[in-house]
Amino acid sequence: MISKDSVNKNQQWQELVFKSFLQILRAPYGDFGSIWNLANVINDEDSLRETITLLSCHAPAKSAIQSRFLLGMIDLQQLNCLPKETLGYIYSEHMLRNGLKLIPCQTVKNDFDYLMVHLTEVHDIWHVVINADTSMAGETKLQAFVAAQLRNSRFSFAMLAKNLLKASVEDLVLAEQLMNALTAGWLLGKQSQPIFGIRWDELWEVPLTKLQEQLAILPKISS
Amino acid sequence: MISKDSVNKNQQWQELVFKSFLQILRAPYGDFGSIWNLANVINDEDSLRETITLLSCHAPAKSAIQSRFLLGMIDLQQLNCLPKETLGYIYSEHMLRNGLKLIPCQTVKNDFDYLMVHLTEVHDIWHVVINADTSMAGETKLQAFVAAQLRNSRFSFAMLAKNLLKASVEDLVLAEQLMNALTAGWLLGKQSQPIFGIRWDELWEVPLTKLQEQLAILPKISS
Repeated sequence: MISKDSVNKNQQWQELVFKSFLQILRAPYGDFGSIWNLANVINDEDSLRETITLLSCHAPAKSAIQSRFLLGMIDLQQLNCLPKETLGYIYSEHMLRNGLKLIPCQTVKNDFDYLMVHLTEVHDIWHVVINADTSMAGETKLQAFVAAQLRNSRFSFAMLAKNLLKASVEDLVLAEQLMNALTAGWLLGKQSQPIFGIRWDELWEVPLTKLQEQLAILPKISS
Repeated sequence: MISKDSVNKNQQWQELVFKSFLQILRAPYGDFGSIWNLANVINDEDSLRETITLLSCHAPAKSAIQSRFLLGMIDLQQLNCLPKETLGYIYSEHMLRNGLKLIPCQTVKNDFDYLMVHLTEVHDIWHVVINADTSMAGETKLQAFVAAQLRNSRFSFAMLAKNLLKASVEDLVLAEQLMNALTAGWLLGKQSQPIFGIRWDELWEVPLTKLQEQLAILPKISS
């Protein structure tokens, strides 16, 4: 039997989620304060633990979570000297062309921290790996891909709902683009191999299309 | 130049939308009062006019909007006597088996009223035509199908966002099902012929699969 106290606590939590959701709706896209706030409020321990368990069914994620490996600082100028078809070159181009900065390493005290820090670190690599640009449609494609890969991330689903509602009141042309992007990202995330925890630092010199074929992001071309 | 007054009015409208959105989030699924309230608040005249224009590019919708034809009362018992493969039989089974009631005809004073009344009248026929059951996943598949067919319906996008956010806090297993349903419905709505305004009352005796092939809901099987 569920106690009254537990029902009340759940209702209080839901109201906090809705409050953070309203805050992020009113903020401009990419407002890190509101995004961080929503993530902190909506991600409860039970669902995070379940995410870790689901991810750990796959070897690269299991190993990454156990060792808590971080990519750390990446030399973009060095990657930019690699052949043009490589992951390293294309990733460095994506970063330099869009004026994006690497996010400094953060402290990891437990598996939940690691989940967030790893996802933050690989955000722009995943952009490149799934061919998602930095437009709102590209961000939504990536968010849907992440949602499909994590399977039970309250935060990812809520961010998709936020993008869709925000566009539906602010920009209807964008809303249609976001639905196309969300659909594409979700299907890709389901079809692709699990990519959480991959050691991208060992793959910079691999041609991007070869990697995408191996990960089932692109269909395999029989040779 | 956009005036301050216009910016303020827009902000006030957005806040009203967010308030209705919160109300529907807190209500149980299928709470008609909250649904109706959100539709009334979010559907502005400009986007509704654009929907009418987009729909009117296709003959069945243009003719239906001009004549404002309504299906009116349907004799479910009579349809239930048709052969088992027909639209009429399958629709009547869907209604009777799920204990669903026909919605009495409403007054239509203008094109905007017609849009809403027609969509309400055909809701359960569309359920059958796209193979969407009455579960939350089925409703979400239909909502995404409607969004794709109308292309710029603020209300449809907002309802999808609501279902996704509600499931992300209340039921994570459902959230994943809703994403699958949303994706399937959106793709089907894009791939299918425009079905707004179709005279279903002339098609009761047609086999459902034949209709679905003609509408590109099912792939055509060459004979």
